[in-house]
Amino acid sequence: MGGDFGPRITVPATLDILRQYSFLRVVLLGDENEIRPHFTNIGDIPSDQYQIHHCSEAVAMDEKPSFAVRNKRDSSLWQALKLVADGQANACVSAGNTGALVAMSFLQLKTLTGITRPAICTKVPTSKGYTHLLDLGANIECSAEQLYQFGMMASLAVMASAVGGKKPSVGLLNIGVEEIKGRQQILDAAELLSADPEIDYIGFVEGDDLFKGTADIVVCDGFSGNIALKASEGVATMLSGFLKEALSQNLRSKVAGLLAGPALESLQQRLDPAAYNGACLLGLRGVVVKSHGGASVEGFSRALSVAVNEAHRDLPTLIEERLLNKIID
Amino acid sequence: MGGDFGPRITVPATLDILRQYSFLRVVLLGDENEIRPHFTNIGDIPSDQYQIHHCSEAVAMDEKPSFAVRNKRDSSLWQALKLVADGQANACVSAGNTGALVAMSFLQLKTLTGITRPAICTKVPTSKGYTHLLDLGANIECSAEQLYQFGMMASLAVMASAVGGKKPSVGLLNIGVEEIKGRQQILDAAELLSADPEIDYIGFVEGDDLFKGTADIVVCDGFSGNIALKASEGVATMLSGFLKEALSQNLRSKVAGLLAGPALESLQQRLDPAAYNGACLLGLRGVVVKSHGGASVEGFSRALSVAVNEAHRDLPTLIEERLLNKIID
Repeated sequence: MGGDFGPRITVPATLDILRQYSFLRVVLLGDENEIRPHFTNIGDIPSDQYQIHHCSEAVAMDEKPSFAVRNKRDSSLWQALKLVADGQANACVSAGNTGALVAMSFLQLKTLTGITRPAICTKVPTSKGYTHLLDLGANIECSAEQLYQFGMMASLAVMASAVGGKKPSVGLLNIGVEEIKGRQQILDAAELLSADPEIDYIGFVEGDDLFKGTADIVVCDGFSGNIALKASEGVATMLSGFLKEALSQNLRSKVAGLLAGPALESLQQRLDPAAYNGACLLGLRGVVVKSHGGASVEGFSRALSVAVNEAHRDLPTLIEERLLNKIID
Repeated sequence: MGGDFGPRITVPATLDILRQYSFLRVVLLGDENEIRPHFTNIGDIPSDQYQIHHCSEAVAMDEKPSFAVRNKRDSSLWQALKLVADGQANACVSAGNTGALVAMSFLQLKTLTGITRPAICTKVPTSKGYTHLLDLGANIECSAEQLYQFGMMASLAVMASAVGGKKPSVGLLNIGVEEIKGRQQILDAAELLSADPEIDYIGFVEGDDLFKGTADIVVCDGFSGNIALKASEGVATMLSGFLKEALSQNLRSKVAGLLAGPALESLQQRLDPAAYNGACLLGLRGVVVKSHGGASVEGFSRALSVAVNEAHRDLPTLIEERLLNKIID
């Protein structure tokens, strides 16, 4: 039910992903009357691959998470996470209210032993490939220990996804200006990260490093991460608008625009938000993936396939094993 | 002496600005032996318009501000600010160490009555024109009262620069995710800003609003502002690189690139960092302007002309009058 478009996007995306993975079973939770009409073009998808689980309510995008958590127990969001908590589903994907998703998954799934709070982690494109950035808003303020945990979890997640890959590099987001006061937690987190031999900590990185690919993973609090990501999206949107304007100023630039069409399209694909959709909530006892609220069918499909992969790798267990070993050491 | 290039940039920029403003007098502070060789092409600039003030030391770009403040009293930076503090100069412009500039100007010039700390404020281009963003790194953490002061100062600064303009709109940078905990100072700052009838406070804005032109002024702590600005610069650089690549893939795209040349150039001019160079330190008893360390001659000239304008409007006095009236009220 979540996101800016609800079942209009989530149902077709589900059908797409079911065509890709024949082993997959999907439960769609929400208002059956709203979901059902979008079940068109089912083709030859076997009917045992999907089911609709009717829920009497939904969490609105602008609803207060604390209110939703207390009062919306038959919402699609709460019920979807309950399926994961009860072991009936391997992962939950939502395009809905991020704050409610974080709060509800924290309450129902709990965090892994040794993890204080979950963090939202996403990929961002860089000049060299991509960087993993976390946290993106699950934690407004973070202790040094939490920042360290974020780096460690993301490091394990990236290693688990690469076949025989080397340890990913981890940077801590900071500002270059020498500090007169404050942000002691970042300095302390740097010490914790340096001290862990299983983490390839490369030091502080600045805002522009995010897109240079200086580090494979960039760690920050959820406030800074959210601001950095949204500001970047804002610039990209503005520049793309400016470029369109520039290429329609006069006949010459219009011809240039037409000729440049395929090149610009391949550029657009390279930066396609849909290709980067699907942020993971790391640190929970279960797989939870957050789709952008404004995701397209293609974008939401991508978030679903992120969930399939995370569940397949059983990332929560990998992280917990590492944590338990660390505690025993 | 400051910036990535020192007198090689600052001297030619000074000569340029002297050609523009015949009433202007400039004192160049630093190592005379390094400065003097760049005095070429002086043309008909009268020699009483400029003078070199030799200083035996300089603050390095990566020097610890606390060290510089204590030990570098004959540095070009300290001496330049001393001229402003002593009333011998109306403004100081530097491309040097930002932390040292903030610390030294705070110590020598002091803040205005009622202002806790200075803030660094710059213009950023938006789809509609530009937004003023502050703080950019003078204050890693900010109280509600400080954030309110930033909004008020920027509001006065923008009003003073517009002829008969209406009150500029002020937004507070925040994240959309409903908070589980933290950043009470932003919520409190929102109340302070709303309560001031002389400020057109429009509420919270998010990272992407920065470039939509949602508000004329966006207020945040120096950590978030620095991250937002640098991340945005990083994206812009990455995208411009991607575009160049896309337009050199094959013959067709190369022809498109050639045809698009003038259009892309006008786009580049629209976004030229030189045009936005010159960030103001608001809240001090004197005009201090920070140039980007990597600024070109054109960029540093721009920072110099920002200083000329600020000094001409006597912004510190305008802000202090407003503050004193508020205290009496």
